[in-house]
Amino acid sequence: MGKKYVRLDKDNAAVLLVDHQTGLLSLVRDIDPDKFKNNVLAVAAAAKYFNLPTILTTSFENGPNGPMVPELKEIFPDAPFIPRPGQINAWDNEDFVKAVKATGKKQLIIAGVVTEVCVAFPALSALEEDFEVFVITDASGTFNALTRDSALDRVSSAGAQLMTWFGMACELHRDWRNDIEGLGTLFSNHIPDYRNLINSFNYNNSDKSEH
Amino acid sequence: MGKKYVRLDKDNAAVLLVDHQTGLLSLVRDIDPDKFKNNVLAVAAAAKYFNLPTILTTSFENGPNGPMVPELKEIFPDAPFIPRPGQINAWDNEDFVKAVKATGKKQLIIAGVVTEVCVAFPALSALEEDFEVFVITDASGTFNALTRDSALDRVSSAGAQLMTWFGMACELHRDWRNDIEGLGTLFSNHIPDYRNLINSFNYNNSDKSEH
Amino acid sequence: MGKKYVRLDKDNAAVLLVDHQTGLLSLVRDIDPDKFKNNVLAVAAAAKYFNLPTILTTSFENGPNGPMVPELKEIFPDAPFIPRPGQINAWDNEDFVKAVKATGKKQLIIAGVVTEVCVAFPALSALEEDFEVFVITDASGTFNALTRDSALDRVSSAGAQLMTWFGMACELHRDWRNDIEGLGTLFSNHIPDYRNLINSFNYNNSDKSEH
Amino acid sequence: MGKKYVRLDKDNAAVLLVDHQTGLLSLVRDIDPDKFKNNVLAVAAAAKYFNLPTILTTSFENGPNGPMVPELKEIFPDAPFIPRPGQINAWDNEDFVKAVKATGKKQLIIAGVVTEVCVAFPALSALEEDFEVFVITDASGTFNALTRDSALDRVSSAGAQLMTWFGMACELHRDWRNDIEGLGTLFSNHIPDYRNLINSFNYNNSDKSEH
Amino acid sequence: MGKKYVRLDKDNAAVLLVDHQTGLLSLVRDIDPDKFKNNVLAVAAAAKYFNLPTILTTSFENGPNGPMVPELKEIFPDAPFIPRPGQINAWDNEDFVKAVKATGKKQLIIAGVVTEVCVAFPALSALEEDFEVFVITDASGTFNALTRDSALDRVSSAGAQLMTWFGMACELHRDWRNDIEGLGTLFSNHIPDYRNLINSFNYNNSDKSEH
Amino acid sequence: MGKKYVRLDKDNAAVLLVDHQTGLLSLVRDIDPDKFKNNVLAVAAAAKYFNLPTILTTSFENGPNGPMVPELKEIFPDAPFIPRPGQINAWDNEDFVKAVKATGKKQLIIAGVVTEVCVAFPALSALEEDFEVFVITDASGTFNALTRDSALDRVSSAGAQLMTWFGMACELHRDWRNDIEGLGTLFSNHIPDYRNLINSFNYNNSDKSEH
Amino acid sequence: MGKKYVRLDKDNAAVLLVDHQTGLLSLVRDIDPDKFKNNVLAVAAAAKYFNLPTILTTSFENGPNGPMVPELKEIFPDAPFIPRPGQINAWDNEDFVKAVKATGKKQLIIAGVVTEVCVAFPALSALEEDFEVFVITDASGTFNALTRDSALDRVSSAGAQLMTWFGMACELHRDWRNDIEGLGTLFSNHIPDYRNLINSFNYNNSDKSEH
Amino acid sequence: MGKKYVRLDKDNAAVLLVDHQTGLLSLVRDIDPDKFKNNVLAVAAAAKYFNLPTILTTSFENGPNGPMVPELKEIFPDAPFIPRPGQINAWDNEDFVKAVKATGKKQLIIAGVVTEVCVAFPALSALEEDFEVFVITDASGTFNALTRDSALDRVSSAGAQLMTWFGMACELHRDWRNDIEGLGTLFSNHIPDYRNLINSFNYNNSDKSEH
Repeated sequence: MGKKYVRLDKDNAAVLLVDHQTGLLSLVRDIDPDKFKNNVLAVAAAAKYFNLPTILTTSFENGPNGPMVPELKEIFPDAPFIPRPGQINAWDNEDFVKAVKATGKKQLIIAGVVTEVCVAFPALSALEEDFEVFVITDASGTFNALTRDSALDRVSSAGAQLMTWFGMACELHRDWRNDIEGLGTLFSNHIPDYRNLINSFNYNNSDKSEH
Repeated sequence: MGKKYVRLDKDNAAVLLVDHQTGLLSLVRDIDPDKFKNNVLAVAAAAKYFNLPTILTTSFENGPNGPMVPELKEIFPDAPFIPRPGQINAWDNEDFVKAVKATGKKQLIIAGVVTEVCVAFPALSALEEDFEVFVITDASGTFNALTRDSALDRVSSAGAQLMTWFGMACELHRDWRNDIEGLGTLFSNHIPDYRNLINSFNYNNSDKSEH
Repeated sequence: MGKKYVRLDKDNAAVLLVDHQTGLLSLVRDIDPDKFKNNVLAVAAAAKYFNLPTILTTSFENGPNGPMVPELKEIFPDAPFIPRPGQINAWDNEDFVKAVKATGKKQLIIAGVVTEVCVAFPALSALEEDFEVFVITDASGTFNALTRDSALDRVSSAGAQLMTWFGMACELHRDWRNDIEGLGTLFSNHIPDYRNLINSFNYNNSDKSEH
Repeated sequence: MGKKYVRLDKDNAAVLLVDHQTGLLSLVRDIDPDKFKNNVLAVAAAAKYFNLPTILTTSFENGPNGPMVPELKEIFPDAPFIPRPGQINAWDNEDFVKAVKATGKKQLIIAGVVTEVCVAFPALSALEEDFEVFVITDASGTFNALTRDSALDRVSSAGAQLMTWFGMACELHRDWRNDIEGLGTLFSNHIPDYRNLINSFNYNNSDKSEH
Repeated sequence: MGKKYVRLDKDNAAVLLVDHQTGLLSLVRDIDPDKFKNNVLAVAAAAKYFNLPTILTTSFENGPNGPMVPELKEIFPDAPFIPRPGQINAWDNEDFVKAVKATGKKQLIIAGVVTEVCVAFPALSALEEDFEVFVITDASGTFNALTRDSALDRVSSAGAQLMTWFGMACELHRDWRNDIEGLGTLFSNHIPDYRNLINSFNYNNSDKSEH
Repeated sequence: MGKKYVRLDKDNAAVLLVDHQTGLLSLVRDIDPDKFKNNVLAVAAAAKYFNLPTILTTSFENGPNGPMVPELKEIFPDAPFIPRPGQINAWDNEDFVKAVKATGKKQLIIAGVVTEVCVAFPALSALEEDFEVFVITDASGTFNALTRDSALDRVSSAGAQLMTWFGMACELHRDWRNDIEGLGTLFSNHIPDYRNLINSFNYNNSDKSEH
Repeated sequence: MGKKYVRLDKDNAAVLLVDHQTGLLSLVRDIDPDKFKNNVLAVAAAAKYFNLPTILTTSFENGPNGPMVPELKEIFPDAPFIPRPGQINAWDNEDFVKAVKATGKKQLIIAGVVTEVCVAFPALSALEEDFEVFVITDASGTFNALTRDSALDRVSSAGAQLMTWFGMACELHRDWRNDIEGLGTLFSNHIPDYRNLINSFNYNNSDKSEH
Repeated sequence: MGKKYVRLDKDNAAVLLVDHQTGLLSLVRDIDPDKFKNNVLAVAAAAKYFNLPTILTTSFENGPNGPMVPELKEIFPDAPFIPRPGQINAWDNEDFVKAVKATGKKQLIIAGVVTEVCVAFPALSALEEDFEVFVITDASGTFNALTRDSALDRVSSAGAQLMTWFGMACELHRDWRNDIEGLGTLFSNHIPDYRNLINSFNYNNSDKSEH
């Protein structure tokens, strides 16, 4: 009874970043832009940190949708990048699916813009092919909360796990002892409150007279 | 485990617009009127654009509920229009069900006012008869968010897919290459942010000295 | 797949009003007091109008919880009234369950204060005994939205239908022609916007010179 | 420095109810309808209770704006009622100003729909003629909070006192001993929380065995 | 004591639309895009309807800010249009001030994007030169509510009147009898609730059998 | 231009706690009860800590309003306590005013329930007699935000300073060196976040092996 | 169909308090700090009151996360306290699981910081091992509502029951007669509104002349 | 009538950053942490960009308040830095005032934590000494919106100008032509939406085949 606990495994997960494009981002209004930018970069930084195979795709870069956010391309210079010629559901693009399958991973972490289309469509398609799907809800944005809630109801009902970037990073890491400094840096860069905790702690444990 | 991915198919879908009447609209307070008007017209425009058989129905036009919003009747001058003599659940009206079945479609896209009655009742009835039901949550309105959330929980639990008009249009279209200009116009007319993207893009790609 | 459409049937439904007491009402903060009072009285008025067997129960009237709201007792002077000596879950009180079963009804419409206790507990108990349970979410109140949402998740997951009073009245009535004036009066008394529609309509159809 | 304390005085105050019409009320979205209806009736009940001269006015009753809310006309059957033939600012209507001045009162309590027009315009005009103006903000409604806040900034900057109906009643009454039961009844009828306090109190001080 | 009632006068007012550009609009997040688009077009329609001299200005059209929203240029094909080569405060641009003064009007109605810059700066400058300034708060947009509230506090403290487009139209019109149909059309086009009232009214007063 | 900086001075300030009664508190809905209880107790603790003369007053303790919150009476066992026989504005009660004047203080810090009556009325009266009035907005509660905002506009326009309890404590204390531990304890008891900071700091500066 | 009614049983339940640490608490922003502190202490007080075996655990006390909130350690001086050396999911720590299993209880009540990690991870792990899991949503905190809602969707879909502390206490107590004073005290200490009800009630039933 | 337009002048303005300390930041809950961090760094970046003399001050760095946020110290390595030994109002610290006056500037731009204390107190003191004070409301944070609004009412009433960082930067810059790239970079770094506009624009104006 109930969904099984499908636990993210860094050896078995790939990340799909779908349509975080400079034009499309102006449509995102369910999450504040400063926070949303941070969340998207945090997912990317986590993917990088855990060395997860990552695939980037865009829809119509040469039109109003605009190009993929440059920071993402800089973080993943060698990742497969599939600018789709027209397919709205990335899973309808053969190259994209081939790239996904080439990773050999069973778990797909998906974030994108806008949630109900660029995230939900490939998530639903991947579930149909028995992938384990994790939607990163706070790195996926759309027009408003009603739209988001409807989309998340749809993907969750179909079997996807709803997560946010911090939980994703924690579930992948498993144990702080695997690398305290690495994870701490990730959190410090993307959680101002955590950075403050670290800075207060370090200050208290330093020779304060140096300051 | 989990709902299947039931994907909207423009060759197999019909649209039911239920009780968008000038009086009843004053009851809608979970979505702002400017946005709600836009969403309802967007569903209608999408139905028209994809050539989906569309059925209009009303409850008691001659009383306080008021007539069907005139724009909807203008968009669908030849659509079956079933003013119900009293049935609250449109599915209790034989003519309505007959009109639905006459379309020969298996997928029903439903929007209406108010969500927990005019949408939820026929949605639940249609699910019982094994239709695939898509509730367009942002073109369906009601008294407040608690009422809406209760209604959406009920229809989702019974098997309906919750969508919003933009996702509906994207899932029906499948591929921009089927008609870039047509879909772009639909979005430009109903998403101010998208219209701005298009206008900026066109301006940048035009001979600006003409302006 | 999915919950069945369990449709309210006025010949097969009873109403349980649980712990709407003058003291406990001060705990309700997820719904504004003017609206909440209206919703509770609307459920009561609907129960009366549809002649549904109705059972009132309270917890510790002689202590800080205070007595049942007097209006409810006035509306149902002859209804079974079960002041519980201590059981928190009304279903743990034999007299209450006996009264429920004595109605011979299979469908239970429940509202109360507070949602996660006085509503959820008997709702869950009744579901276990195969009653069809309808929680009237807008006539049930509690401390805040998080508490409510947790409670509604629990009862919905267990099989209850979430409804609000207006949907309840509409589903019970089925067809306006059964009694236009009766239902209209119910709505006019409890939905200010609907009352305005009726007043505007009547004015327009009257001899205005009389005014 | 600062506005003077202009204190409402029941011997020197008149009430102006402007354009609470059944059609126009559908425009009010900054206050929930159940609460707004209650607030408007509470101002009226207070005016009645304190015997304040009260003037009703409407704009275009015979058109879409609809008639004055019937309850208000019933509460004040003998009050001057000035249906304005076209003037948007009630103060531009000579009969209205004449009626106001005929009261001989210096303090004007104003509520109406919509705030930035039907309330703000006559409030500003009355201030220019050195009346002391009290805008009842919770019995005045409009499209949204931004509109209301802009309107209230305008009238407050011009010298009006912003009050709500409960403060108005308290300032007029001055001392509970003038009539405990009368004021208590007013509050009981229009403040559910206060009614609960009274009912709990009475119950505790009654012979509970009677219940 | 208090600001004077400065009343909009259609013979003495000009409208300044500042930097409603397709790029800058993506910065506006204190008002929903559907509503904001409507409000801006409503101010423009009102300016047109009342024949007020109107001046358009933009900042850096050829860069990321994008061109003036095309609809505005279409509504005012012959209005002075001053694309500023660099001045952030439009009042620092001589051509703009010249155009304003050329109107010979004393009252300036200002709306723009973003509120704290493109609206507040010229508003403050104009107040210094003893213009009567009316900021249309709902046709001016910015990053968030805190920014807006700070900006409105600044301009109001400096003497500007805060208004919204509906109040502006009503204060300019003064009396419905000046043109019932014209004003009604303006409202019907930009207030969905009002359009519904009109449609219900017309339907009730028509020969319904025609429908 | 502008209000002067009237700075709280612990040698010249008295505290008035008006009508924080167990019944009336159920009317407070503009601040969450956990937070409001904390804020009221924080004002009381600050008054105690700074040794400010404090006056308690109530309205109708023997009726539904209920008694003064017991904690307040326990904190100030020897403070003047004036149960008013009927005056709604505490300043209309001679004993109260006498008690205020007996303190010999010029600065009055006022908090109470409900804001627009029990706080605003004596605040306005005291301003008229040239007291310097500080309204503690977060220890004063009322029905909703609109009521509060209207009340605060009224008292601020009349010359009162709006403060919250933390600012009050800081302005009275002036310099941490006057008593680090005392102020720290006050903050630790009433600001969970500050308590956490202190606990983290102490832990880091302790011999952690002890834990 | 639907989750079974798994009812909390005081003879079969244990409580897990996970990572309520002074540093981590600064991350909690979905619940106000005054309320959150109260909720956490209320869960602890309830655990104590019902004598439930309780287990405390922390992550990295000696770093920025800070120590367990001291009050919790004081309430449970003899409880198993498992400071985890690195495991993020407490269930990955053998000592923790051993301590849980040593209680011999089948029902686990879990609260912690942050919800999607410290609560969700052990909750999902425990469900896999067929424990009955109750997540106390209002004593679990995280970054924002979207994160919380995603986490709660995940644990509820996996079979956990969502509850809040008041419902937990009521379901454990079953019947007021088991100990009226004990439960009343618990509520009085953690629900200001309930405390007010009790104080009003006691005052009304005392010899008031004593006050 | 009304405040004068006091216009920021980059040759006459200094910036005061008060108590942005790693511990105190955990108290800020009226602005989301991602956004607040961005706003504070944006004010700092603007101060740097416009070469404004900037003064940093802290309260009790060695205690729970924690050290100044390191980024601020890095941006202004040579700025006067005044760790106050105890004064809560920075203006009570002679060194601070000396440093302020040593700048020779008349205009003071102030931001800090928490708004009602660390910002409001020195702002009010500076106004008394006839400085022109600009409070940067979005780079100043505090416990909640009520506290903030009370504080801003106090400083605005005393003559301060309320601004946000973007308006501050624009008013200082005056004309884009002074340095298009510099201002553009500032905006690109601190306004995600603006960065997107720039990236879209550049992409459209580049040789896209390069991408």
